[in-house]
Amino acid sequence: MVKEKEQNSNKEKKLLVSLIWNFSTELKLISLALLVILTLATLLPFIPSQFSLSASDFRFCISRFSSSPAPVNTTTTTTKASPEKNTTTAKLDRVLDNGVIKRTFTGYGSAAYNFVTMSAYRGGVNTFAVIGLSSKPLHVYGHPSYRCEWVPLDPAQDPVSTTGLKILTDWGYGRIYTTVVVNCTFPSTTPVGGNLILHATTGDPDRNLTDSIPVLTEPPNSVDLTLYSSTKKKKYDYLYCGSSLYGNLSPQRVREWIAYHARFFGERSHFVLHDAGGIHGEVFEVLRPWIELGRVTVHDIREQERFDGYYHNQFMVVNDCLHRYRFAAKWMFFFDVDEFIYVPEKETISSVMESLEEYSQFTIEQMPMSSKICYSGDGPARTYRSWGFEKMAYRDVKKVPRRDRKYAVQPSNVFATGVHMSQNLQGKTYHKAESKIRYFHYHGSISQRREPCRHLFNDSRVVLENNPYVLDTTIRDVGLAVKTFEMRTIGNRLLRTRQ
Amino acid sequence: MVKEKEQNSNKEKKLLVSLIWNFSTELKLISLALLVILTLATLLPFIPSQFSLSASDFRFCISRFSSSPAPVNTTTTTTKASPEKNTTTAKLDRVLDNGVIKRTFTGYGSAAYNFVTMSAYRGGVNTFAVIGLSSKPLHVYGHPSYRCEWVPLDPAQDPVSTTGLKILTDWGYGRIYTTVVVNCTFPSTTPVGGNLILHATTGDPDRNLTDSIPVLTEPPNSVDLTLYSSTKKKKYDYLYCGSSLYGNLSPQRVREWIAYHARFFGERSHFVLHDAGGIHGEVFEVLRPWIELGRVTVHDIREQERFDGYYHNQFMVVNDCLHRYRFAAKWMFFFDVDEFIYVPEKETISSVMESLEEYSQFTIEQMPMSSKICYSGDGPARTYRSWGFEKMAYRDVKKVPRRDRKYAVQPSNVFATGVHMSQNLQGKTYHKAESKIRYFHYHGSISQRREPCRHLFNDSRVVLENNPYVLDTTIRDVGLAVKTFEMRTIGNRLLRTRQ
Repeated sequence: MVKEKEQNSNKEKKLLVSLIWNFSTELKLISLALLVILTLATLLPFIPSQFSLSASDFRFCISRFSSSPAPVNTTTTTTKASPEKNTTTAKLDRVLDNGVIKRTFTGYGSAAYNFVTMSAYRGGVNTFAVIGLSSKPLHVYGHPSYRCEWVPLDPAQDPVSTTGLKILTDWGYGRIYTTVVVNCTFPSTTPVGGNLILHATTGDPDRNLTDSIPVLTEPPNSVDLTLYSSTKKKKYDYLYCGSSLYGNLSPQRVREWIAYHARFFGERSHFVLHDAGGIHGEVFEVLRPWIELGRVTVHDIREQERFDGYYHNQFMVVNDCLHRYRFAAKWMFFFDVDEFIYVPEKETISSVMESLEEYSQFTIEQMPMSSKICYSGDGPARTYRSWGFEKMAYRDVKKVPRRDRKYAVQPSNVFATGVHMSQNLQGKTYHKAESKIRYFHYHGSISQRREPCRHLFNDSRVVLENNPYVLDTTIRDVGLAVKTFEMRTIGNRLLRTRQ
Repeated sequence: MVKEKEQNSNKEKKLLVSLIWNFSTELKLISLALLVILTLATLLPFIPSQFSLSASDFRFCISRFSSSPAPVNTTTTTTKASPEKNTTTAKLDRVLDNGVIKRTFTGYGSAAYNFVTMSAYRGGVNTFAVIGLSSKPLHVYGHPSYRCEWVPLDPAQDPVSTTGLKILTDWGYGRIYTTVVVNCTFPSTTPVGGNLILHATTGDPDRNLTDSIPVLTEPPNSVDLTLYSSTKKKKYDYLYCGSSLYGNLSPQRVREWIAYHARFFGERSHFVLHDAGGIHGEVFEVLRPWIELGRVTVHDIREQERFDGYYHNQFMVVNDCLHRYRFAAKWMFFFDVDEFIYVPEKETISSVMESLEEYSQFTIEQMPMSSKICYSGDGPARTYRSWGFEKMAYRDVKKVPRRDRKYAVQPSNVFATGVHMSQNLQGKTYHKAESKIRYFHYHGSISQRREPCRHLFNDSRVVLENNPYVLDTTIRDVGLAVKTFEMRTIGNRLLRTRQ
């Protein structure tokens, strides 16, 4: 009886245990699942963006499992990309009650990014510049807009937000992409240390989505705000911002160019070159001594080739250079590596620049030089051995309505720049500096890997293929000085450089 | 003692139970989770695509939880959109060993779809046409390509694949989007019943991704393949494909146009109109009787306004019409609702079309009519009450080098069409049909909701604003016949129609 009772009791216990067991397991499973989902949902907004996951991503994952149609015309804020727009479900055409056939249209995939970031820089106590690319037809036919948000690292300080002023520096050019500079100027000082978020809205009636892009992380105490005061002495007097270099450039021509300008602009100058494939191994070798001396910085921008813009995205590149070095130099020069800046013998670059100080920008007149006709005053053998700018001494004097100009700016006054001049700056622009400064342009001389001279002459005037030329030895005359300067500065390391 | 033992035994039991309990619960949880994941992974490829879920979606969800950088230049096949390209993680610039600064570029969001589907139609025993939009600059600067795949519903039959021939019908026009017709012709007969998948590859070096788009589902036994034999008698002799109608169209002008052409083309004709907002309530009322008689079909294409193409995507719309009705009509006409087709009195439309049968296409010369100068032969009061084509009887006879033409085709010979003529067809095109068929164009008459006459004249010749006009009563003369025809066919329902 006792045994039976015990057995019964045991059975009951077992039953109870198994009941609780089973019930509790399901309960635990459900509770755990719920807990996981809720925890995830709660934690999601706080997970750092480097983790590559945002609330919208999770929402997206969920939405993919339902067969709801693609959301249209919704404005949603996402960190990183906006996957919602890809949740396309083809809708079917249907016949309405009145007999009309209601047609539907469904978009798939993506042909261009809304925004491609290159960089963002602080440009003052309350202002930033974001440099990147955006879809060209979106800017021609659509109404994209930008908002900037500054999220201080100090959690006690609230984020601030402002309208981003978009500057399109290559209007009319561009291909799949166009260059966009977004000026983010906040109403008051933004404390040092924080994250800059660019909210880029396509403004497209079909997909009016906002991509929220983290463009700049500024560590605490990383910026000295006195940098932006105009009285502060700049690191460089002159900074050269080069355009995208591409193609099979001649190492010897680049060697000559850098030696000439390192001497011309002097110790307190710096050269920023952008390699879009043009700084191949041999070209890099002629730059290496100058890089080691701290006179040249090379930016490898080959990755931008992924994005089809105007000429290796040169407009983006010069704007990056402008904003990156904006407070590091008093003057910034924009011209090409087949162009040589010149001031009259009685002047120096610093005397000229001092005289132009009242201008924020001045443009520089072009002296077009032939890159085929050479001066053989020294005899053919010596001519072939001489430097490019020593032998290419014939200037094209054909009358033309207008030739391209290049330019220099005081960058602290400039918000965006172009290739031939800046159209976004404060202060005056001067176009009549030709008696003070000019540039000699050896068009086509740098992109060929061979002896440039096709015709040798001794005359002071030459007509070739109906085009008049005059002998102009302005740059030729400083050849010896430049060669001596190079030897003195970097030694004979580049002596065996080839065309 | 017994009590204690019992207690101990109970304790042990509890411990054991709790141990097994806990252990088993974790084990169960893990097993269950594994089971769910494996089941999902196993079932994923078999889940039908309408469920809006594909293996890639799941992969995407997983990949979002990892912080791997965005895959670049990978070709991935996805059903629906390609979310992979959105998993952007900003990379950081870094200084290389040689001192070069390696810059990075990161794309965010999406500015345009790779492909927007409108429709796909079978066009023969082994050929299909897909009609849609694609990013304009992608087609101008990029190298997008298409592959077509036919997946028979019968699982015993293998899917077949072929290169999709893209036809750009509006080359030079287009805005954010351009119209694309993809011709999918397979090497041999594709059995009736299956799914057509369009694999659209951007060809973009940055994002060379393929979107695999289900464009057509053909139920088994749904197509009679003899439809495509040229001897088969077509449902209609003449089918009108209208362009996108937009703006505040005049109901009275539309009433006149449809009555005129319903009579002109006769019983075996049909009119397909496309409503891009132009068929507003009052315009629909004048079409309603003809829709009820089966003479008119209206397609509501307002949704395409989401996609910014050339003039309400008219190139896409006429190509949809071509392919949708390609084997339903012997001849197809392409002209506008302010244009009136005419054949000389001694001819009928069928005698003219018979004489042009050897041509796949002929273009139609324009007779430009003033939509401001009216003929007041009946006196002002009766003039204002008369129909538009009765009073607008002055023809512009200014000499111009060339006027726009409209056209008709035998659609079975045509692969894609334009607005002024087709450039993608087999067979001959005839441009000298002006003695047989012409059209009168009342430009600007239909887009205004008011009395068109600004000047009334009686003369046979008029010069206004230095432009010569002659009285041409060709269309005016059939006014009574058209009005009688309308009354006989649909009664007096439209008698109170307003301008």
